[in-house]
Amino acid sequence: MGSAIKQIAVLGSTGSIGQQTLDVVRALPHRFHVVGLAAGRNIDLLARQIEEFRPRFVYYSPTDDQGRKIPARLANTECELLSPEDIARYPEVDTVVIATSGKAGLSPTLAAIKAGKKVALANKEVLVMAGEIITYEAKLNTAQIFPIDSEHSAIWQCLKGETEKAARLILTASGGPFYHYSSAQLEGVTVEQALEHPSWQMGRKVTIDSATLMNKGLEVIEAHWLFSMPFDNIEVLIHPQSIIHSMVEFIDGSLKAQLSYPDMRLPIQYALSYPERLPNPQLPGLDWSRISNLNFEQPDLDAFPCLKLAIEAGSKGGTYPAVLCGADEVAVELFLSQRIKFVDIANLIEQVLERHQVVAHPALEEIMAADAWAREKVLQLANGENLC
Amino acid sequence: MGSAIKQIAVLGSTGSIGQQTLDVVRALPHRFHVVGLAAGRNIDLLARQIEEFRPRFVYYSPTDDQGRKIPARLANTECELLSPEDIARYPEVDTVVIATSGKAGLSPTLAAIKAGKKVALANKEVLVMAGEIITYEAKLNTAQIFPIDSEHSAIWQCLKGETEKAARLILTASGGPFYHYSSAQLEGVTVEQALEHPSWQMGRKVTIDSATLMNKGLEVIEAHWLFSMPFDNIEVLIHPQSIIHSMVEFIDGSLKAQLSYPDMRLPIQYALSYPERLPNPQLPGLDWSRISNLNFEQPDLDAFPCLKLAIEAGSKGGTYPAVLCGADEVAVELFLSQRIKFVDIANLIEQVLERHQVVAHPALEEIMAADAWAREKVLQLANGENLC
Repeated sequence: MGSAIKQIAVLGSTGSIGQQTLDVVRALPHRFHVVGLAAGRNIDLLARQIEEFRPRFVYYSPTDDQGRKIPARLANTECELLSPEDIARYPEVDTVVIATSGKAGLSPTLAAIKAGKKVALANKEVLVMAGEIITYEAKLNTAQIFPIDSEHSAIWQCLKGETEKAARLILTASGGPFYHYSSAQLEGVTVEQALEHPSWQMGRKVTIDSATLMNKGLEVIEAHWLFSMPFDNIEVLIHPQSIIHSMVEFIDGSLKAQLSYPDMRLPIQYALSYPERLPNPQLPGLDWSRISNLNFEQPDLDAFPCLKLAIEAGSKGGTYPAVLCGADEVAVELFLSQRIKFVDIANLIEQVLERHQVVAHPALEEIMAADAWAREKVLQLANGENLC
Repeated sequence: MGSAIKQIAVLGSTGSIGQQTLDVVRALPHRFHVVGLAAGRNIDLLARQIEEFRPRFVYYSPTDDQGRKIPARLANTECELLSPEDIARYPEVDTVVIATSGKAGLSPTLAAIKAGKKVALANKEVLVMAGEIITYEAKLNTAQIFPIDSEHSAIWQCLKGETEKAARLILTASGGPFYHYSSAQLEGVTVEQALEHPSWQMGRKVTIDSATLMNKGLEVIEAHWLFSMPFDNIEVLIHPQSIIHSMVEFIDGSLKAQLSYPDMRLPIQYALSYPERLPNPQLPGLDWSRISNLNFEQPDLDAFPCLKLAIEAGSKGGTYPAVLCGADEVAVELFLSQRIKFVDIANLIEQVLERHQVVAHPALEEIMAADAWAREKVLQLANGENLC
């Protein structure tokens, strides 16, 4: 092991996590090599990435942002065009980074798992919607799922070398930009305000999810699946500075925490280099002369109902989490296009969850159907159609 | 391994750490059994401990607090009288807890190490005075040294399972009762004030050492030997709440911290149960609804020169740390008996260190001689004899 070059495929390479993954590869070219890149519609950036990393395989969406067919701009590269699934399962690939967002990550993740790959997972929906299937298949195929989320990476790092199961997981949350807002203030929140996250630079969807605390709720569900932890033993703690990324409490009452400046390149690199740690001068150590206090607060579930909705959906299981995801995605889109208010995101999701006929231990098709149903239902409710 | 009962010897069983070690054994009688007890002069407590734990071997000082010969009160127990060294090396003993204070711990620790035992070490002087010999002998005899100090236990827990060496160790310090005192205020500190530590219940000597920050300096030297870490990569950070017990920074910029309420039973139990963790309902998990902030500050080396003196003595090595220990012990005694002021503790130690002719890579006898020289020198200086 040790010093061999790891062969990496990055699915979603033009998104925020994808770009930061390539930053890590760029900083450690003697340890990581990009075999495959897959992107959505940002063809210009993908073309530059292909130029720089010279992957063997590439995938891109057949239409651009305006729905027009992509011209054969990439046709003259030496890359072979493959589907994301085929890139994920290609024998030479050691680690597949799932840096896509939304349910599009599900199929390539399953392909990677069924091929027994190491899967570095940044996509939330994969585990939230299909955690039971994903963890079952991973066990069956001795595939390993390495979390890239800073919270789950923190927990994973704290569990390293421990022989006993954890007693409790404590996921920290910055609280987002509105943490101390009153209900009246939350009513008036604008899209611009919601997109300004105090500590993390992220995509638009996840930034809004952070502002509603839905993001933390999804992470609770992910933690449940990643670490086989009952929901009752997973806590959320508001920690505005985002220095402690999460904590584990052990059966003897001892806790471990993982700390760093908020920088996604650290958990990405850890997922790529595990079980090793690699020096990367671009990742700064904490400067304790500039940190005078770390604050903690209990989450306010009344002001931020999305967190409660997510934990409830996760606890109930079945197709509820898929409904949660689908409804949230559409509700966030409606907020971003200024068709609903910030507080309506939770209201709509709650109404959709209440109307859902759950399927226990769903197959993938049932999960997809629940997601599609939820998306339609949110639109109906938002349009005031209130149909059942 | 796993569920076998571990055979424990506790040297210094009537002191603060010794009593808490027996608390842990009392809470987990199915996992730990006391084979041997050794104590100083608190014969009444030792008699009760013998009654309760029925050890096979026992040692006690031949004279009591007033220097009188101990009556044969323990003669009618079924315990065999053995020296601390013989208890430490007895074949049945699995783990030897060195809970004594001062240089008296050195000889039994060496006996345990030469017998290849697991040594759970609470005694600071052993590593500070003779770190080079102790770590060399431990390696030679494949003995393991498990730290009981909360700071070193924290670092040890954070290093568990990590394959790479740490980049930096960060030892936290409560700062003691006088942390924000001015120089004028420090001049007037009384013994009673100095004995009131804000977060830990400890013996008198270590409580004064905490107030001067000498204790933290000694811990830096211990950390150097326990974790083979250069002094330049060991930092001290003031953290008044004593919740984070220390931290490790790794080469990728990630840090791990260990947290708990300040309770010595946790690191004691971890040293006894390692590599396992055991549930102990008497050790409470942190209640995050009652923790709203953790504070951090850089140490003030001008107001607390003992910390600087200790790190310098440790860095220079040889017999300097033994001189530091010996001088400190006598200076603290002089303060406790109200013969010198609080600030004179550091002044006296500094003068003695300046006058010392160092021996590099000293043998045990040279260490002991340096210690004896330092003790005498402090007394001379305190008596104003200023002889060279």
